[in-house]
Amino acid sequence: MDMHAMNRARIGIFGASGYAGMELTRLCAGHGQLELVFLASERHVGQPVEALTGVSSAAPAAYVDFATARAAAETCTVVFLATPAEVSLKVGSELIAAGVRVVDLSGAFRLQDAAAYQQFYAHAPASAELMEKAVYGLPELFREQIASAQLLSNPGCYATAATLALYPLLARKLIRSEDLVISALSGASGAGRKAAEDFSLVELHDNVKAYRVLNHQHIPEIEQSLSRATGARVSLTFTPHLLPIPRGILSTAYARLTSARDAKALTAELRAAYAGEPFIRVLDRPEDVTLHGVVGTNLCHLGVTCHPEDGGRVVVVSAIDNLVKGAAGQALQNLNLMLGQPQQTGLASLRRFHP
Amino acid sequence: MDMHAMNRARIGIFGASGYAGMELTRLCAGHGQLELVFLASERHVGQPVEALTGVSSAAPAAYVDFATARAAAETCTVVFLATPAEVSLKVGSELIAAGVRVVDLSGAFRLQDAAAYQQFYAHAPASAELMEKAVYGLPELFREQIASAQLLSNPGCYATAATLALYPLLARKLIRSEDLVISALSGASGAGRKAAEDFSLVELHDNVKAYRVLNHQHIPEIEQSLSRATGARVSLTFTPHLLPIPRGILSTAYARLTSARDAKALTAELRAAYAGEPFIRVLDRPEDVTLHGVVGTNLCHLGVTCHPEDGGRVVVVSAIDNLVKGAAGQALQNLNLMLGQPQQTGLASLRRFHP
Amino acid sequence: MDMHAMNRARIGIFGASGYAGMELTRLCAGHGQLELVFLASERHVGQPVEALTGVSSAAPAAYVDFATARAAAETCTVVFLATPAEVSLKVGSELIAAGVRVVDLSGAFRLQDAAAYQQFYAHAPASAELMEKAVYGLPELFREQIASAQLLSNPGCYATAATLALYPLLARKLIRSEDLVISALSGASGAGRKAAEDFSLVELHDNVKAYRVLNHQHIPEIEQSLSRATGARVSLTFTPHLLPIPRGILSTAYARLTSARDAKALTAELRAAYAGEPFIRVLDRPEDVTLHGVVGTNLCHLGVTCHPEDGGRVVVVSAIDNLVKGAAGQALQNLNLMLGQPQQTGLASLRRFHP
Amino acid sequence: MDMHAMNRARIGIFGASGYAGMELTRLCAGHGQLELVFLASERHVGQPVEALTGVSSAAPAAYVDFATARAAAETCTVVFLATPAEVSLKVGSELIAAGVRVVDLSGAFRLQDAAAYQQFYAHAPASAELMEKAVYGLPELFREQIASAQLLSNPGCYATAATLALYPLLARKLIRSEDLVISALSGASGAGRKAAEDFSLVELHDNVKAYRVLNHQHIPEIEQSLSRATGARVSLTFTPHLLPIPRGILSTAYARLTSARDAKALTAELRAAYAGEPFIRVLDRPEDVTLHGVVGTNLCHLGVTCHPEDGGRVVVVSAIDNLVKGAAGQALQNLNLMLGQPQQTGLASLRRFHP
Repeated sequence: MDMHAMNRARIGIFGASGYAGMELTRLCAGHGQLELVFLASERHVGQPVEALTGVSSAAPAAYVDFATARAAAETCTVVFLATPAEVSLKVGSELIAAGVRVVDLSGAFRLQDAAAYQQFYAHAPASAELMEKAVYGLPELFREQIASAQLLSNPGCYATAATLALYPLLARKLIRSEDLVISALSGASGAGRKAAEDFSLVELHDNVKAYRVLNHQHIPEIEQSLSRATGARVSLTFTPHLLPIPRGILSTAYARLTSARDAKALTAELRAAYAGEPFIRVLDRPEDVTLHGVVGTNLCHLGVTCHPEDGGRVVVVSAIDNLVKGAAGQALQNLNLMLGQPQQTGLASLRRFHP
Repeated sequence: MDMHAMNRARIGIFGASGYAGMELTRLCAGHGQLELVFLASERHVGQPVEALTGVSSAAPAAYVDFATARAAAETCTVVFLATPAEVSLKVGSELIAAGVRVVDLSGAFRLQDAAAYQQFYAHAPASAELMEKAVYGLPELFREQIASAQLLSNPGCYATAATLALYPLLARKLIRSEDLVISALSGASGAGRKAAEDFSLVELHDNVKAYRVLNHQHIPEIEQSLSRATGARVSLTFTPHLLPIPRGILSTAYARLTSARDAKALTAELRAAYAGEPFIRVLDRPEDVTLHGVVGTNLCHLGVTCHPEDGGRVVVVSAIDNLVKGAAGQALQNLNLMLGQPQQTGLASLRRFHP
Repeated sequence: MDMHAMNRARIGIFGASGYAGMELTRLCAGHGQLELVFLASERHVGQPVEALTGVSSAAPAAYVDFATARAAAETCTVVFLATPAEVSLKVGSELIAAGVRVVDLSGAFRLQDAAAYQQFYAHAPASAELMEKAVYGLPELFREQIASAQLLSNPGCYATAATLALYPLLARKLIRSEDLVISALSGASGAGRKAAEDFSLVELHDNVKAYRVLNHQHIPEIEQSLSRATGARVSLTFTPHLLPIPRGILSTAYARLTSARDAKALTAELRAAYAGEPFIRVLDRPEDVTLHGVVGTNLCHLGVTCHPEDGGRVVVVSAIDNLVKGAAGQALQNLNLMLGQPQQTGLASLRRFHP
Repeated sequence: MDMHAMNRARIGIFGASGYAGMELTRLCAGHGQLELVFLASERHVGQPVEALTGVSSAAPAAYVDFATARAAAETCTVVFLATPAEVSLKVGSELIAAGVRVVDLSGAFRLQDAAAYQQFYAHAPASAELMEKAVYGLPELFREQIASAQLLSNPGCYATAATLALYPLLARKLIRSEDLVISALSGASGAGRKAAEDFSLVELHDNVKAYRVLNHQHIPEIEQSLSRATGARVSLTFTPHLLPIPRGILSTAYARLTSARDAKALTAELRAAYAGEPFIRVLDRPEDVTLHGVVGTNLCHLGVTCHPEDGGRVVVVSAIDNLVKGAAGQALQNLNLMLGQPQQTGLASLRRFHP
């Protein structure tokens, strides 16, 4: 431990050997102000962290099991849960009860509507008491409560891309809240690390398909956020599709104008809404938004166009890296806010990877 | 020439070294009842056909130039134009005037609305006289005029996938004709053979983006066909996206129910509409529709689901191979009908390629 | 059963839902002279064959279990085993004892050297009695015994590509039998259908690595064949690499000239050796050999060059589709020979898929 | 310009909009101690740097033409040439004459043998006077002259991977210098930014082929370096292959032991040779070396095994990111050494990208 370690926040990660956990490991190791106390895994206990992540310093050398991590967790400033929702429910409840601050990357604490949670996640929701503590961490839209959160619920990847695209247009009453359609595409890492035939290269390569049509668990999550924009219940249609690539989400959202307005005006409104936000770029045209522009970074790129007449169709395209702005990067952004640090710490140096 | 050649239809292909032309070459060579008289190319004149297509028999050995082909074309039963719209306009007009039957794979003769053509193709349309002869060749929906067509206009790839998905639902008054949204995805061969930096592997690999948003030339084509289903002008929103794979189109269409009805009922209606059609398969669920299921074949796979209440959202997913059912395969299907042969000739043996 | 069925050979496939089995199913269904009596699977019993293979006619509708198939197998003309070596050993032994003709696609019956088998396959070899019956089915090199074989051992995919490249050069004493090095690349379907994390798209995509270095089970198989070319024991170095694509093998073999000779001379020798072979194409240059040229077909493409001086380095590149010429296609070619049919039956219509 | 700019080295890049130039731009912008004075391009003059590279600060906003850059170059501490060899020859000669320090990423100044240069590059070599100044910048092997170099010639990508694999084994007399064979694989970005049909996604995807067999310009470059290891002329066989992925080189080298020795001993020797080198990792087995392990970083991973008997075959697998350790990263490493800075500056924070 070096001399500065005393000033560093002590961090632990449950689920550190999944794809989001691996990305989080890399980001925390490169952050500079964090001490990685433990990396806990269920399937890779004892294995070297470098072999999975490439991280050879500023992190523990090997994965520990959950029981070992559980004890260390109580000494941490903040603990990340990059675990499935059911695991997060259990581990998160215990850690909150023990007074530890938690950032959860699963859906366990995202939905305030318990019935919707039960319907879409097919298991019992967190207690109402716990959900009262849960702060939904989409900083560009709901920043105020994050700094003081004990239980930070990190948004879903699709929800991040879609909500950032539509929220300001709804809040500024530029689009109607009926008739929202979102067709979104995700790389395969969004499904997590899988030992499943269906996720083998031979099955996925050169293939595309829709899944969980009208039934995906991010639907109520997006609706919940967009309802905060309008003050009334918003409902929408959302179809996710699986792409034959590892990373990235591209979301194409369809709405209707509340009154005549052209593409330039909409672009200007989006830029005004996100003025000063370092991780949002509103590009000139929806065609300029690409996965290449964001993969490897914590950025969200947006582009909008429309048929300019009253009721005219609006198309908003947004792109993020599902493992960064859609998971680990946004979790670190939230951690920074919780620690009172600049939100870009450890994220500004991320470089676009392609090409 | 073997003894049966006299009974074979004499066929020529302009644009034979493009991707649709190459696929058409392979299909014609394997058809059994066709004599390939010439394969004309602008950029590959003199090059061996086998090197590009793998076809080593039942086809000319080398590509000829357009001038050479032009003379031979008048001796052909039917000539295929797998050329850009502007080239098809010129060559097609001449061949029609000379009494040759033509199957055109470009957009040159697809739109009856001259103003729409001018707007979306950015050059002058075919003459009204020529457009009167043009028969739009989507056999499953508009079969009757194909057999006698002199000028057969082969549908666009996106238009094929989207129209087959929505037409029967509109014709049977199951969905409303307003609020149609189509979000579609295509492999890169849809853009044709390109020596462009933007289409290099490094630029496209792992990338996805929308293009020609609200502005793609298949919009008026789909609207024209769907208007035939309703008897009134239909308008829709369509966004194409470029996938980092060579082949395949997946289209996700969104509509609203005209009255309460469930997914099973819609599936049954689609099956009834396409009963007996060898190239259409209506699968149980939209999630069952995949590129793997159709690539390499002349099939269109369809799947539908909905929220069952009055006005509930309907989602129809369709998939085709853009070079087969979206281009060369459908052109051969049309040729078969024009020659009075079974429409499956030369297409039934196509095998699914993946995995 | 149609009227011609009585003349058709009755065929069954064990392991029909693996990748080689699926390809074999498609090939047999399109062959025209075969009756597919059963398709047996361990993991897909009861599932529809069309969903996996796209085959909707000329094949059973669903997979049966091995016990059911076992009884039917004794009524078959020939039974294919597309099973792991240990399963093939057991099922094959029983079927041979029952007098059924067998084509085995595994390594179970490929090695005459029992010690080598034990070393590379890590289980006990077939009995010497059984191995006496085993005929190694690489038709272009060892055709004579195939027609009368009761137990046909279909070659390995790498072994096919490498042996076809080197055998004629050794047999004609053009290259030295020492110093043979083969560096080969294979798509992921070569490893079979896997529910393994290591074979997921996310792990394999954009990745390449060597595996089983100096230790792959095709080493003794290639050595055994090449020793038949020289009449003396040949040993070689072979390194397989895993490519992030589904299909295709490209093998680059390195040797040394026995005496001064140029690339044209070597090309001419290879062409002479394979004169009249419909599935072998010797191209002008090794750079002309590509996966695109062979994938989807039963072809093997070859190209050779060298430094022309005595002892000069020779490089031979070969390419095949690992599931066709490297597995199911070659198995069908062998079946044709065993049935006294033209070897191209059901294989001549295969079309190059890319691009 | 901030207050610290006066202490920063002034840097310019010719060819900044090619793939190596783009990577170099990102690395320089993130370095912290460099001032990017100009980014010069031939084809992207006036275009925004952020659109191509994602770099939005610490770099000029737009590309300038070469003439504009030429004047600014004389005010720079060091100028990078990420240009084709012929351009580097011309621009490099002028800048050296003007007293500017130059790091050239092309092959222009790599070969001391003028005849070999003429043969492999097909144009006239640099003057003998200039070649006397040229320092070959492979820091792990030839570090001593780099710090004082005026003309630094950055190694080729294949040459870096192959030389790092074989040099220590030759220098320590563990392998024979005859019989060296290298079979190497590269992603398509190695060919540079191309508007060529042959490099389109449709042509390259799922394809693999060898190219420039026995004729690649890195052959004399590797031979030149390895001859420094042995003190005598080394010759070798090298075959590059093009992979359907954007980034990464995997090289598999074959040699023979000088005396009996096992894989562990060879691994220990390699580790001893590279002790303390931050960018070299010798892994336990050649199978552990993957593109995923290095892509996105300046690392070279190595793994070795052998048949342990005297004269036994040795296989060494090495992997690098062709745009980082194979181009821009190594160029920055060399720059650091030329500036007297720690060689890892700006490179230590690079993160493994996959998965």
